[in-house]
This record gives sequence, structure tokens and C-alpha cells, in this order.
Amino acid sequence: MSLAEQKRIGKIAMLYVLDEGRQESVEELGWIHCSGKVGSMESNKIVAAIETAAKKNEVINGSVYRETHALYHAIMEALHGVTRGQVQLGTVLRTVGLRFTVVRGQPYEQPEEGEWIAVALYGTIGAPVKGLEHEAIGLGINHI
Amino acid sequence: MSLAEQKRIGKIAMLYVLDEGRQESVEELGWIHCSGKVGSMESNKIVAAIETAAKKNEVINGSVYRETHALYHAIMEALHGVTRGQVQLGTVLRTVGLRFTVVRGQPYEQPEEGEWIAVALYGTIGAPVKGLEHEAIGLGINHI
Amino acid sequence: MSLAEQKRIGKIAMLYVLDEGRQESVEELGWIHCSGKVGSMESNKIVAAIETAAKKNEVINGSVYRETHALYHAIMEALHGVTRGQVQLGTVLRTVGLRFTVVRGQPYEQPEEGEWIAVALYGTIGAPVKGLEHEAIGLGINHI
Amino acid sequence: MSLAEQKRIGKIAMLYVLDEGRQESVEELGWIHCSGKVGSMESNKIVAAIETAAKKNEVINGSVYRETHALYHAIMEALHGVTRGQVQLGTVLRTVGLRFTVVRGQPYEQPEEGEWIAVALYGTIGAPVKGLEHEAIGLGINHI
Amino acid sequence: MSLAEQKRIGKIAMLYVLDEGRQESVEELGWIHCSGKVGSMESNKIVAAIETAAKKNEVINGSVYRETHALYHAIMEALHGVTRGQVQLGTVLRTVGLRFTVVRGQPYEQPEEGEWIAVALYGTIGAPVKGLEHEAIGLGINHI
Amino acid sequence: MSLAEQKRIGKIAMLYVLDEGRQESVEELGWIHCSGKVGSMESNKIVAAIETAAKKNEVINGSVYRETHALYHAIMEALHGVTRGQVQLGTVLRTVGLRFTVVRGQPYEQPEEGEWIAVALYGTIGAPVKGLEHEAIGLGINHI
Repeated sequence: MSLAEQKRIGKIAMLYVLDEGRQESVEELGWIHCSGKVGSMESNKIVAAIETAAKKNEVINGSVYRETHALYHAIMEALHGVTRGQVQLGTVLRTVGLRFTVVRGQPYEQPEEGEWIAVALYGTIGAPVKGLEHEAIGLGINHI
Repeated sequence: MSLAEQKRIGKIAMLYVLDEGRQESVEELGWIHCSGKVGSMESNKIVAAIETAAKKNEVINGSVYRETHALYHAIMEALHGVTRGQVQLGTVLRTVGLRFTVVRGQPYEQPEEGEWIAVALYGTIGAPVKGLEHEAIGLGINHI
Repeated sequence: MSLAEQKRIGKIAMLYVLDEGRQESVEELGWIHCSGKVGSMESNKIVAAIETAAKKNEVINGSVYRETHALYHAIMEALHGVTRGQVQLGTVLRTVGLRFTVVRGQPYEQPEEGEWIAVALYGTIGAPVKGLEHEAIGLGINHI
Repeated sequence: MSLAEQKRIGKIAMLYVLDEGRQESVEELGWIHCSGKVGSMESNKIVAAIETAAKKNEVINGSVYRETHALYHAIMEALHGVTRGQVQLGTVLRTVGLRFTVVRGQPYEQPEEGEWIAVALYGTIGAPVKGLEHEAIGLGINHI
Repeated sequence: MSLAEQKRIGKIAMLYVLDEGRQESVEELGWIHCSGKVGSMESNKIVAAIETAAKKNEVINGSVYRETHALYHAIMEALHGVTRGQVQLGTVLRTVGLRFTVVRGQPYEQPEEGEWIAVALYGTIGAPVKGLEHEAIGLGINHI
Repeated sequence: MSLAEQKRIGKIAMLYVLDEGRQESVEELGWIHCSGKVGSMESNKIVAAIETAAKKNEVINGSVYRETHALYHAIMEALHGVTRGQVQLGTVLRTVGLRFTVVRGQPYEQPEEGEWIAVALYGTIGAPVKGLEHEAIGLGINHI
């Protein structure tokens, strides 16, 4: 059940979202992945942008609910790190500009642990005024 | 008020905690920093370990309350990313093994924005059984 | 102060909402009740639908604030069970289709414990796409 | 992706926990299940009791982390319904006496939706004094 | 259903807790009240101290559950104002020193609105070190 | 690091918002302050009204992000006291009518503790129907 040192899916997804040049490590492992950018005051648009990218890039199979369900909870968990308290943006007068990465792979040495999905977010959060913002990070991990 | 590209304190702190070799970028900027490890089921021990390291390494002045207050809220925000919902560990039967980094610097171009503090956490969270765990990440940022 | 075995208002309300044929047990007790259906991405519409039904069916007296207040908190508590973390629907890109039951009665053996109100919810929660959903349940109980 | 009418895992688990005579419907479907009782002011003991019962009765394979992970999140979601706000018991001076049911089965018509797990809780919550309590219910559902 | 201007129970309870000389306004109205002090890192001890004082001073009848239930929720709501996020103290390494006031009266002009209870808290919250603290306030109101 | 008895910024801000005649104590200390009223079902409008008043009255310098950041978190903490659980208004079908006070001063005896900001809120919360409401109070304090 132990996490394989070279397959730390969370760390890999986070390094990838922090520095777009890093996607090689994901590709060397043969893992499926996608990334993108989204900025909004509406938290539902953040969720939608990540779900759409993950389906379009076939990181998840959008016609199977269990895959959507696994991704959704990973996104929500990553948003907890970004919002730190209430998963709310515009309703508490703040906005985000985020880069996101979704990675799907086998981080455990045991094959029966199967596939997991990681959602990494990095960007800024703050008032809806350019520059009145600081950085924010989130990571969500789920079995899929 | 804009974040200076080379002084992204959150990204720097996160890269540092993900890969201990990275502390050069913090030192090149002349920023104060510390790092350490802590594993516990008791969330208060996580807070105490980070506060103690930050005071001992003079990242904050422990005899000035406003510095302790700034650090405390940054720690709590970082713990939201790690715990994703309830800032609880043992009381919901889970434990963490974390590496932490605290960085204090001037991430904004304007000198009047002054100093900020970033707390980055990386490690694993899971059941109190070796291996029954996945990765977790948190970042908290505050003005100091 | 003990709950009377045959007057378990929460269990009765939950069995009622799970299976509409069950309303006899409520009626045998002579308790006031109502039920209905509501589907929405807007959490305020869920609250409004239950409040409107309870007033129209005279489960509560809408012109007395203490009754509205008791019902409101019972609804909010039931929504915690349905939403499990953040009492949000559309803002986190999810929708519900719910059946609800409101029951008002005396569940305790001692007459001085007076009347209590139970709100039971049962239905599905998920993405705003037909079928991408699983079941959800909530129960809120308050003195009235 | 639609929920099969006769295989509503959440409703089945909830009816089962509300009325112990109902386990036939689970058995007719050939689904794995277990149930038990636990009372405590310590929320971690509630989690432990459910996990232990699920492993001992082979509802999950305790040596595979993904199964433990799926069950853990289903338990936490069910506890949200019981605690309605903060997943805390003794730390906010309250205690619970709960019956629990864990059911594992295939609630969707499409075979690719695979197995899901439902945790249903029913009992009382209140002050640590006999009788100063009302009922509480929770349901958590996860893919496994 | 309107709040009577001279009977604003929340304002009266808050002025009372902020300045102990103010209890005359409560007594002029003929309302039942009590006050006290409690300091602890254990949130359950805060709840217990307020409940005990309210019972001993007959602000509530401790042998009637509906009164205990009304008071409990008012205390929990007041603690939200003091803790601002997670109703936790020692588990997140902080402590409080609080003065509390409980007032029971009829704040509405209409007699059918009956009795309500207000719990007001005022004091300091901070690190478990003398002086590393700032003020905190909370108010909870419930029908009784 | 101790709070000076006559400079209790939280108590001063709360007494000020509870009774508009009290602003003398703030002025005697030479502290900057502002106050106003706002009523809305939209929580972002509450935040905006307070921020706008604080900037217009030069309680904070709106062109320095660290000041906006300090105020924002103080507002959010005050809203926790008002909303007691979820920082939501219209989305859970409730509205507020609030008076607010923002005070900026030096509450500690030691000059190195510098300036702090307090946001005090007082008013009513309830259903979007006149009279179906009770009082609510919140206080947020931050270093600035």
C-alpha cells in the first residue's frame, strides 16, 4: 500500500501546475493529464472549466458517472486549499485566476491500488481589482 | 500592488517544501526562512512545531504578538488545504506526516506592501496505519 | 425527558419521505405533516419550497416568527446532511432533486417537552446532467 | 448512468439502519453488508467502530487502501448529516448513540459504474445526560 | 412580529457582558439572567460553564430538554462568533478567557412570539501564552 | 504584549456600533474610524459597503494591498459571528440589515505591536419578510 517514491502523483501534479515545463515527468510515467487556465468570480465556472478540460482530454470518461464523481470530489478538495474556509468566491467578493492540472495514474506500488486522480491548482486570489491579490494553492486526490 | 514575477512567495515556498534542494532561490532573495518535519494525529502539535521552528530560526519575533498572529493565521490557512473541510486530525481518526517551510519576504514590487509570510505544507494524510495514506498540500499567506 | 419509542419523530419523518405510503403512522399519532418535491440548483429555492409547503399546510403558523425560526433551522440542518460540507448547490456546480417531509408532533413522553418539528429530505445530488448523481439524505429536528 | 429503481443503495441502507428487520432486501440483491452499534463522545471512536466492522465482515478489503479511502469518505459524509455543522462531539459537549449500516453494491444499471458503498447512521445526539437528546441521521455514498 | 426597540435582547445581553454595571436594564424588564467567567483551551468546558450557570441560576429548567436544546444551540452560535471558522480551541492551539451573559426574555411586541434566549460572549482569544491574544465576541439567539 | 485596558479596540468598536452616540471614546484616543449601514441578501454587497466606507473615510489606504487584505479578513471574521456557520445570506434565503463600524488604532501597550483594525457589526438577520428576524453581532480583528 505504500506510495512509490517516483510516482508521487500529488507532488508531480503540483510541480506541473507551478511550472508548465514540467509535464515530462507525467509523460515519462505514461500517465494521462491535462492542464489549463481559468479566472472567475463564479466558483461553478472553475469547476466547469476543470471538468470540461478533463473530459475533452480524456483524463476521465465523461459518460461514466463514477469517474465524474471521483474528479468532482478531487476538484472540491483542491478548492478548499484555494479558498481556505468557505468554498466561495464572488459571494464573498473575491476572484481567482488559476492554472490547473489534472493527472491520472497509479501512485502506489501495489497494482490492486489501481488508478488515482490528482487536481492541482495554482494562481492568485483577491479582490476584484487587478493587483489586490496573493497566491493560492490547492491539491485534491481521489481514487478513480 | 502587483506581485513581482521572481518573488512569488507562495510558489517559492511550495517548491522549497516539495524539494529540499530548492532553498537557494529563497536565499538569493535574501529572505528569512525555515523548514522542518512533523508527524502527528494532534493538530495542535502541527501548529506548535511550525511556530517553534519559526521563532527559533527568527523568521518571526516571538515576543511581538502581531508577528505570532500573522504566522498563526497563515498556518491555519495552510492546514485548510491539508485537511480539506474540517481542521481535524485524530478526532476524525486520521494522521499526517508533513514537511513544512516558512518564508518571510517582500513579494510585491511596491515597497509599501512590506513583508508577507508564507507557510507551505507537503506530506501525507491518512489512517493511523502505515501506507493507508495519500498526499496533501497546503499554503497560507498573510501580511506581517 | 425520554423519547417515546412509538413517537420517534425523526424516524417517522424519514420513513415517510423514503416511501410515500407511510404517512399513516404520522396520521395515527394525530401529528401535522406535509410533503412535496423540489428540484433546483439554487439552494434558496429548496428552502423556499419547504417553507411554503409548511405554511400552506399549516404545519407552522407563518405569521409567528418563532415558528418560522424553528422550521428554518430544521431545514438548514437537514441540508447539511444532503450537502455534506458546504450548504451550496449551483455555486459548486451541483443540483438536487428532493422529496421532503415536515412533521410536527410530541416525540417525548413528558408533556412539558412540547412540540418538535422534523424535516426529512431524500433524493439525488449530482452534476447538472441527468444520471450523473447519487442519493442524498438529511434530517433536521428542532423544538417549536 | 441512471440509478436502478430497485437498487437504490442509499434508501436501502437507510431503511436497513432504521429497522433491523430490513436486511433481506440487501441480501436479495446479493450485496455485501454489515451493521452495528456504537455510542461515544469521541468522534474517532465512531469512525473506528464502522471501519472495524466493515473490515471484519469483509465489506471492504482492509489491506487495499483505495477501499479504506472510499469507506472513510463515506463515513465522514454520513457524520456531516449527524453533526450538522462541525464534525465534533465531545469537544462541543455532546454525545451520540448510533446504529450503523454499511452496504456495498451496484446501484446503477450500467455495469461500468461498478461498485459503490453506502454508510447509513441513525440514533440520537445530545448532552451527555440520558434523555437530553434528539434523533440524528446521516448517509454517505462513495464509489469504491 | 417586530422587535420592540427597548427589548432588543441581543443588544442588552451584549452591553451587559461588555460592562458588568449594565445589568439594570435586564432587571428593569423583569428578565431572567446570569453571567460568569470561564477560561479554557477545551471548548467543551466553555459550553459546560455556561450551561451550569444557566441551570443554577434558573435561567433555564435543566430537567426540560427543550430548554437545554435551545440554550445549547444559542451557545454554539455565540461560539461561532468567537472562533470564526472552526469551533475549536486547544486542538488548534488557542485558548480563550471569556465573560458570558445569558438573558431570557420577550423581545417581540407580540405575546405569541414568547420567550427567547440570548448568549453573549466577550473576552480574548489567542495563543496559550499571556498577552498573545486579541478580543473576541459572540452572540447566539434562539427561541425557547 | 498586553492589551491596554482603555484601548480595547474590539469593545470600543462594539459599543460604538451598538450605540451611535459612543464615537467619542474612539475620537479621544485619536483613532481613525468610520461607520455606516447596509442591508442586503447578497453577502458580497455587505463586504463592498464596508470596504468602500473604510477607503472613502481613509481608515485604510485602498491603494495598498496589505491594508485591503487586513480589512478583508477582519470583515470575513465579523461575518462569521453574524452568519454562524455558513457565510451565506440569499443563497440560504435570509437577509441582513446591519450597522457597521471600522476602527483602526493601537490597542497594545507596546509600540511594536503597531496598528490593528476592528470591524464590528450589529443588526438583524432573518427571512426576507419584515419582522421575521432576530439580532446578530460580529467582530473581526486583525493586525494592519
